[in-house]
Amino acid sequence: MSAMPLAAQLFDALRDASLDPPGVSRASYGLGERMAHAIIREAAEALGLECRVDPVGTLFMTLPGADRSLAPVMIGSHLDAVTHGGNFDGAAGVVMGLALVAQLRAEGRVLPRDLTVLGIRAEEMCWFPVNYIGSRAAFGLLPPHVPDTARRSDSGKTLAEHMIEEGFDPQFIRDGRASLDPVRIHAFIEPHIEQGPVLVGADLPCAIVTGIRGILRHPICRARGAWNHAGAVPRGFRQDAVLAVAQLAARLDALWDQVEAQGGDLVLTLGEFWTPAAMHAPTKVPGEVAFSLDIRSEQDSVLDAVVALMAEMAAEAEAKRRVRMDYGEGMRAAPALMDPRLRAALRESAAAAGVPVMEMTSGAGHDCASFVLKGVPSAMLFIRNQNGSHNPHEAMELEDFGAALKVLAGAIGAIAEK
Amino acid sequence: MSAMPLAAQLFDALRDASLDPPGVSRASYGLGERMAHAIIREAAEALGLECRVDPVGTLFMTLPGADRSLAPVMIGSHLDAVTHGGNFDGAAGVVMGLALVAQLRAEGRVLPRDLTVLGIRAEEMCWFPVNYIGSRAAFGLLPPHVPDTARRSDSGKTLAEHMIEEGFDPQFIRDGRASLDPVRIHAFIEPHIEQGPVLVGADLPCAIVTGIRGILRHPICRARGAWNHAGAVPRGFRQDAVLAVAQLAARLDALWDQVEAQGGDLVLTLGEFWTPAAMHAPTKVPGEVAFSLDIRSEQDSVLDAVVALMAEMAAEAEAKRRVRMDYGEGMRAAPALMDPRLRAALRESAAAAGVPVMEMTSGAGHDCASFVLKGVPSAMLFIRNQNGSHNPHEAMELEDFGAALKVLAGAIGAIAEK
Repeated sequence: MSAMPLAAQLFDALRDASLDPPGVSRASYGLGERMAHAIIREAAEALGLECRVDPVGTLFMTLPGADRSLAPVMIGSHLDAVTHGGNFDGAAGVVMGLALVAQLRAEGRVLPRDLTVLGIRAEEMCWFPVNYIGSRAAFGLLPPHVPDTARRSDSGKTLAEHMIEEGFDPQFIRDGRASLDPVRIHAFIEPHIEQGPVLVGADLPCAIVTGIRGILRHPICRARGAWNHAGAVPRGFRQDAVLAVAQLAARLDALWDQVEAQGGDLVLTLGEFWTPAAMHAPTKVPGEVAFSLDIRSEQDSVLDAVVALMAEMAAEAEAKRRVRMDYGEGMRAAPALMDPRLRAALRESAAAAGVPVMEMTSGAGHDCASFVLKGVPSAMLFIRNQNGSHNPHEAMELEDFGAALKVLAGAIGAIAEK
Repeated sequence: MSAMPLAAQLFDALRDASLDPPGVSRASYGLGERMAHAIIREAAEALGLECRVDPVGTLFMTLPGADRSLAPVMIGSHLDAVTHGGNFDGAAGVVMGLALVAQLRAEGRVLPRDLTVLGIRAEEMCWFPVNYIGSRAAFGLLPPHVPDTARRSDSGKTLAEHMIEEGFDPQFIRDGRASLDPVRIHAFIEPHIEQGPVLVGADLPCAIVTGIRGILRHPICRARGAWNHAGAVPRGFRQDAVLAVAQLAARLDALWDQVEAQGGDLVLTLGEFWTPAAMHAPTKVPGEVAFSLDIRSEQDSVLDAVVALMAEMAAEAEAKRRVRMDYGEGMRAAPALMDPRLRAALRESAAAAGVPVMEMTSGAGHDCASFVLKGVPSAMLFIRNQNGSHNPHEAMELEDFGAALKVLAGAIGAIAEK
């Protein structure tokens, strides 16, 4: 079967096997993910690929190249999906790997090295509250306690229990072993639907990703002042927590203006901001605010500037309003920059094929970040997608998938050679 | 009995009759308020005052003056108190009226006109959700539906039902009749504890009030944008309701700086500010914020400036962030300015008596605002009070009450003459 009919058939089969109206559900180390792996593996075997599964369930589907001793190029993504989610988040990357193989077969092309399509496990955080379980487990990057401490949101059972149910080996993670060796990966490409509205807005079928944003996240922050009479307490006596956090938000927004003016990258979100319902009233000076901070940038220096501003605003709130800012526990993940040579190969291929593309940053995290962290030259291709992701209205057009495949197919020779 | 022992005895009797640990409770048109009126009336009769009650329960206690045809000076406040509140909020003003009478009696002074001490009903909004019920009812200012629509928070019964239970006549309110005629009031003085921390901070026993702040209140506001992925959606596509309301708060705070620098008066409070718990998350662009606005100023022009800024910020939120600001229903009460000649008489008396005072605005509302609204020349004396009001820790020192009484007694001759 040629590339595009195969892709269409695979997307239909994946949807049918994991329907959970509205949308599809593919639980990490559960039924939907298992069905997806089975469908993909069956198609890979029909294409004559060498298939194997590692102890954490990663599916390796290899098209032999001219020199089998060389490190392979890898292409892939994850096959789980959020509850009542869409059919394309993750799956599109694996299907594109197989569609590329079908095209190479049809053209009779043999690459200078192996091409391995990867079906990665457990990427969606809605199932287990841990980032990139599948790709980090394959690289031996997952903390050893995770199989026994991470519980799946629907079942309450541990990752280890679910892995054993699916025939895999949690001890592999506990022992810190790895099935992926960065030295043995020539390059990694992750095609993925865009989860935001940028390509729809720009009217372009696909994009070449420049990097995955680093994240600075403080999910549980508190500002504490004092509750007081809204009318009878003059300014100098107030300890207004709302004004303190509002000022922080306004100053972060002003920093965003600056970063943007200098061509830098930043998105920031105070997704939660609430005065406690048991205490607050329109006629009381608000004595407490709970809030969250989620800051993302491709530039580590921008995250540094945010950290500095947070400290400055905490000092100002204390001095000016006698409000104590407590940012709680934070996590920081470094930006993952895509490989310039891979990006150039994709750009040149797009130009040669007449596919209009843009370059853009990825605000959401992807398995690809694990590969970058381990030093593997990596790239991502974003495919236009309507209505965002993680919801049943996710909608990728096959035509856009085809445009992205064209870009990938045109670049794969150069990528495999370098 | 001389003035200060009488005051001490009355405060003790009031506390004993309405104890509801921790603190006291005196329900509007209920048991505690009835007990307080009984105690005050008994003391007034013992002082030989002419006592009568109007159809809404206002207690008039009159010391005859030299010319009984002249409009009387009135002194008083309310006798209800919030649940588990303090002993002095309201009561101090009535007790001071009787203490002044006791002092005039002791000194053998006869004022040129009658002096009427008022025991007003139902001022605390925690019982019925309506402003100044007692003083507005006495002036015929209360909307005619209120007796049948306002329900007491503890009983669920209407104001009319409670009035009838206490022997009063709700039809008087429905008919819009009045027992107070502004033309027949020479001046009104309301002594009251300060409900904020200003006098404690300034280390002064009492203050002369310049005015009662006007209020602009929008208790239920909404900002509506769109929920979105915190990382994948770039700035131009975001409709972030938190940033829109934070910007409003920051700009109001900046206006406060300006007003303060120009010597104007303003306090402002966003007492509630919350993203809905069922929707929000640290990793979602916040699509909705509920918030409240409570703005107070002695200057109507400052309230005008706030209204203009609110409109400007709504337009900016719409244009810049595609966030719709809905301020909901608002109420606006004009500032009530105290009479300059009464203020001067009080200032001169304080200076003559060697009582250190300051002038200050009242952030909270008081019955006195009803008198100002009807054109009665009015003044307020604030007495120092620890720990704010509307709570059991309210604590006025008798010594400070005595200092305020000294200021009032020294001014009453001039006030009654003018």
